[in-house]
Amino acid sequence: MESNGKQLSIFSLGGINEIGKNMYVIQYGDDIIVIDAGGKFPDESLLGIDLIIPDISYLEENKDKIRALIVTHGHEDHIGGVPYLLKKMNMPIYATRFTLGLIELKLTEHRLIGDSELVSIDSESNLTFGEIGVSFFKVNHSIPDCLGIVFQTPEGNVVHTGDFKFDLTPVNQEHSDIHKMAEIGRNGVLALLSESTNAERTGSTPTEQIVGENIEEAFMKAPRKIIISTFASNVSRVQQVVEAAIKTNRKLVLLGRSMVNVVDVAIERGYLNVPEGMLADPKEAMNLPPEKVCILCTGSQGEPMAALSRLSTGNYRDAEIHPEDTVILAASPIPGNERDVSKIIDNLFQLGARVIYGSGSSTGMHVSGHGYQEDLKLMLTLMRPKYFIPIHGEYRMLHHHRLLAESVGVEKGNTFIIKNGDVVDIENGAARQTRRIPAGDTYVDGVGVGDIGSIVLRDRKQLSEDGMIVIVLTMSKSERKMISRPDTISRGFVYARESEDLLREINRIVEKTVNDLPEQDKSQWNVIKQSIKKSLGQYLFTQTKRKPMILPIIIEI
Amino acid sequence: MESNGKQLSIFSLGGINEIGKNMYVIQYGDDIIVIDAGGKFPDESLLGIDLIIPDISYLEENKDKIRALIVTHGHEDHIGGVPYLLKKMNMPIYATRFTLGLIELKLTEHRLIGDSELVSIDSESNLTFGEIGVSFFKVNHSIPDCLGIVFQTPEGNVVHTGDFKFDLTPVNQEHSDIHKMAEIGRNGVLALLSESTNAERTGSTPTEQIVGENIEEAFMKAPRKIIISTFASNVSRVQQVVEAAIKTNRKLVLLGRSMVNVVDVAIERGYLNVPEGMLADPKEAMNLPPEKVCILCTGSQGEPMAALSRLSTGNYRDAEIHPEDTVILAASPIPGNERDVSKIIDNLFQLGARVIYGSGSSTGMHVSGHGYQEDLKLMLTLMRPKYFIPIHGEYRMLHHHRLLAESVGVEKGNTFIIKNGDVVDIENGAARQTRRIPAGDTYVDGVGVGDIGSIVLRDRKQLSEDGMIVIVLTMSKSERKMISRPDTISRGFVYARESEDLLREINRIVEKTVNDLPEQDKSQWNVIKQSIKKSLGQYLFTQTKRKPMILPIIIEI
Repeated sequence: MESNGKQLSIFSLGGINEIGKNMYVIQYGDDIIVIDAGGKFPDESLLGIDLIIPDISYLEENKDKIRALIVTHGHEDHIGGVPYLLKKMNMPIYATRFTLGLIELKLTEHRLIGDSELVSIDSESNLTFGEIGVSFFKVNHSIPDCLGIVFQTPEGNVVHTGDFKFDLTPVNQEHSDIHKMAEIGRNGVLALLSESTNAERTGSTPTEQIVGENIEEAFMKAPRKIIISTFASNVSRVQQVVEAAIKTNRKLVLLGRSMVNVVDVAIERGYLNVPEGMLADPKEAMNLPPEKVCILCTGSQGEPMAALSRLSTGNYRDAEIHPEDTVILAASPIPGNERDVSKIIDNLFQLGARVIYGSGSSTGMHVSGHGYQEDLKLMLTLMRPKYFIPIHGEYRMLHHHRLLAESVGVEKGNTFIIKNGDVVDIENGAARQTRRIPAGDTYVDGVGVGDIGSIVLRDRKQLSEDGMIVIVLTMSKSERKMISRPDTISRGFVYARESEDLLREINRIVEKTVNDLPEQDKSQWNVIKQSIKKSLGQYLFTQTKRKPMILPIIIEI
Repeated sequence: MESNGKQLSIFSLGGINEIGKNMYVIQYGDDIIVIDAGGKFPDESLLGIDLIIPDISYLEENKDKIRALIVTHGHEDHIGGVPYLLKKMNMPIYATRFTLGLIELKLTEHRLIGDSELVSIDSESNLTFGEIGVSFFKVNHSIPDCLGIVFQTPEGNVVHTGDFKFDLTPVNQEHSDIHKMAEIGRNGVLALLSESTNAERTGSTPTEQIVGENIEEAFMKAPRKIIISTFASNVSRVQQVVEAAIKTNRKLVLLGRSMVNVVDVAIERGYLNVPEGMLADPKEAMNLPPEKVCILCTGSQGEPMAALSRLSTGNYRDAEIHPEDTVILAASPIPGNERDVSKIIDNLFQLGARVIYGSGSSTGMHVSGHGYQEDLKLMLTLMRPKYFIPIHGEYRMLHHHRLLAESVGVEKGNTFIIKNGDVVDIENGAARQTRRIPAGDTYVDGVGVGDIGSIVLRDRKQLSEDGMIVIVLTMSKSERKMISRPDTISRGFVYARESEDLLREINRIVEKTVNDLPEQDKSQWNVIKQSIKKSLGQYLFTQTKRKPMILPIIIEI
C-alpha cells in the first residue's frame, strides 16, 4: 500500500457521502496530520447504536507517523470522535481556544483530561510538522473561532476550508479573512478541500443578524415568559438572545446540561458577553413576574430527553410553560428530526403557548452556518485551486459542488469525488486516485466501541420486528427422546395471555417435529434445532405473517 | 353513554392529532353514518407494525345502527382501513367510481370482494338513511373524483369537506362545485368539518398545471431515457406525463405494482386518456432508442422495495438507468421519508443520471393537494358554519385552522378542537362536548390485527436496542441446587465469539447468585430468576452500559 518515494497523499476517513464523522488526513512521506475527529448520530436502522465514529485502523497502524490532530471547530461532527481516538493513541491536539474549551468538556466526561497535549492556536499561528508547514485563516460559521487550514508541502499548498459561510456582517465582528484567502489563492493552491453541505442551495447564506432582528421583534411582542431554544454552540445566536433579553428587561435562565456547560465556556473564555446579575436560576425565576423572564434551553432538535421536550410535556421539575408564554424554536430541524420537533410544537400549542417556529411562518428564526452556492463559488474563486476535492457532504452535494467548481474555472477532470478511504496521491504536481486504505463506520454502543457488527445488528432487527420464541427441550441422549413437554417463552412476538391457542399449537408442532425425525437424527442436537426452526418458522409465517427469531435450546439429561 | 332523547352526535375515530387513519362518524338517534376508513403508516417507534387503523369498538358495539360507509376519496389515509372494517362487519359502501375502483383492488387483495355492497355515487346523488339525508359536492384534490358531503339532519346541516384545495384550472377539467357550496352555505350550515393539513401554510395552493408545464420542459430537454416517479393515484399528474411523452414522441413504460394497477383502473374507468399503442412493456422498451422511452414508476417516497429504489441500485430486472438518463421525482417527500429519498437521489447521481428533484431546484415538480390558508378561508367563507370542527391534522394545524375560522367570522367558542373519541353533541341547536367513546390505535402486524399491545412493543424496543441473554439453569428441586453449569445464549447483545470473557463472567455471576441465596429460596424458581436478573443486569450495565433483556429459564429435574 505504501509508495516508495515521497508523495503527498490526501484522504478522508469520514465525512464523504455522509453528514457527520468528519476526519481528513494529509500525509507527506512519513508525516501524517489528522484534521478533525467527528462523530455521527445513527439513523433508526442502526438499532441501539449510540454514536458512529470513523474506522481508524489506518491511523493505528501508522501511530508513529502522526504529528498532530488539528480541529477546525467545535461541532459534534468534528470533535465527537476525539475521545475515542485518544483512547487508542495519544497525539497533540491543535485548536482555537473556544474549540479547545468544548473538547475539554468532552475529555473531562470521558476521564481523559491530561492524557494528550492540548495546544491553543489562532488564525495567526504557524506550525511545522516535518516537511509540512501549517497556517490558518478565519472563516465564519455557526460557532465561534473557526479555522480554515493551509498545508505548505514540498508538492504545493493544500487548503482545507473547515465549515464556512461568508457572513459579511457577523454578529461577533469576527470577519472571514477574505484578504488572506485571496493571498493564499494568489500564491497558488495545489488542492482545495471545501465543504459541500449546502451545495444544492442557490444564492448566498443569509447573515445571522437577520435572526437577531426577528428574535428582538418576537421579544418585544411577547406578553409573558419567553422560552427560546437553539444550539448551545451557536454563541452568536445566544448573544443575540442576551441582547434581546436586555432590551426587554428580562432575566436569563439557562436550562439543559449542554446549554449551561457551553455558555459557561463561552463566557469564561470571552466569547459571550452576559451582564453581571442577568443570569437567574430556575427557582429564582419562578418568583419573578413572567414578563421579566427568558428561558434559554436545549432541545431544538426534538431530543426527547432535552429541556424543551420535557417542558412541552410538563415534565421539567424547575420550570413550567403557561398559556400565553412565548416559545421560540430558533433552529431548523435537521433531516430526520422533523417528526420529533413537530410533536413538541403540538404539545406546546396544547399548553396554550404562542409558538414561533420555522414551518409556515416567515419569521426566520434560523439561518444556516454553511455556505450556499454563491459562498462556495466565492471560496473556489479566491483559492483558484488546480485540484478540487469536495468534502463534507452526501453524494448529490459533492456532485453539485463539482459543477460549481467547473463553473468558476476548475478544469474538468481535476475534481476528485472520492469515497472515505480513497487516496488522492500527488507526485510531481500530478494527482491520481488509484488506491484505498481501510475506512468505514465504527459503532459505539454503551461503552463498547466496534464490538457491534452486522450479525448483532441483524439479530436486533429481527428481534425488533417480530420478537422471538425460545423453545426449551429436555432430551435424553441415551434414550433419544424428549423427557418432558417442551417449554415455550415468547418475547416481542405475541402476548402470551392472548395467544394460548397459538402457544399450544407451537408445542404440538415441536413435539411432532422431534418425534417424526429418523431415529439416527434424534441424538443430533443440531439437526433437531434446525428441524424445529424450519417447521415452526413455516407454521408461524403462515399463521401470522411474522418471522420471529426461533431459539431452540436442548437440555441434555 | 347514550343519551335519551334524539340528538345529533359528531365524532372522530381517527384523523385528529395525526395525519392518517381518517374516520369520522355522524350519528342521529339510531342512525350511524361512517365517513372514510383510513390507515396510517407507523413511525419507527412502532417496531414491526405494518399499519395502524382506528379502534372501531364503538362501531362493533353499534353494528345494527350503521347505515353506510361513505368514502370521500381513494387515498390510503381514507381507504386503508376498509378491509379491516369489513372483516368485522358488513355495511354498504358508497363512493365515486374511481374511489370504488381503488377499494375493489384492496378488497380483492384481502379476498373480501362480494362481501359488502359497493354503491357507486356521484356529486348529484341524494341518499337517505333514516332521518339523515345525504348529498354531495365536488372538490379538487390530488386524486380524481373527490367529494364533500352534506348531511341534512333534523338538527340542521353538517358539512364534511373531504380533502380539498381550490384549483381553478384543474388538469382534468373537473372543477370544484363552488356555486353549489355557496348555495349550501346560503341554506345554513350547522357544523362544518374541514380538513386542516396545510393550515400552517400562507397563500393559496398552486394549480397542478404548473407541474405539467415543468414536466413538459424537462421532457423537452432530456437527451436520453426519462424515468419519472410520482404517486400512482395522482391521475392528473400521470395525464400530464402522458401528454409530455406524446409531445416528445416517447413510449410509456409502467413500473411498480401499484402504478400498473391504478393506471389500469384509471384508463378502464375513463379517468386517464392514453393513446392506443403508447404503452410498452419493459422488455420492448429495452430495444427502443433511449430518447423514445419514458418510464413512469412508483417509489417517489423512497420506499425501499419500490421500483425507483431498486432502479437506483441496479436491482430491477427489466430496466436500467444509464448515464445521461433523466430521472424526475415528481413528488415531495412526506415528513419522515426525507432520508430514504435523499439516499435514492445520491444513488441516481452516482449512476450518472441527471436528477430533477425538489430540494435546491426551482423546477417545481410537485404541488400539494391540500388547501393552504386562503383555500381554507374560502371554504369557511362559502359555508358560513355556526360550529366549526377542524379535522384531519396534527394539533398545530387544527390550532391554526381555528384561528383562520375566527378570522372569517366563526364565533369564538364555536370551534371545537376535539380528540379522536371526543363527541360533539348537538341538541336544539346547541353544541357541547362532554363525553367520550373509545378511540385509539389498532396495530396490524402481519395477519394479526390488534394482537400487538404495549408489552410486546416494549419488549421489541428493549430487544432492538440491547438484544437479549438467555440463561438456562438445570436445577434439582429436591436437592435445591444446580445440576450442571448454566448455559448462556446471547442474541443482538454481543457477538459471542468476540466476547468469550464476558460470557464466562456471566456464568460465574449466575452461579454465585444462585449459590449465595438463602437455602429456603433455592427451591423458589421465581426468586432465583429475579435474583439473576438483578445481579446480572447490574453487572452488564456497569461493564457495557447496555441493558439486554435477561431471560433466565430453569429446567427442573
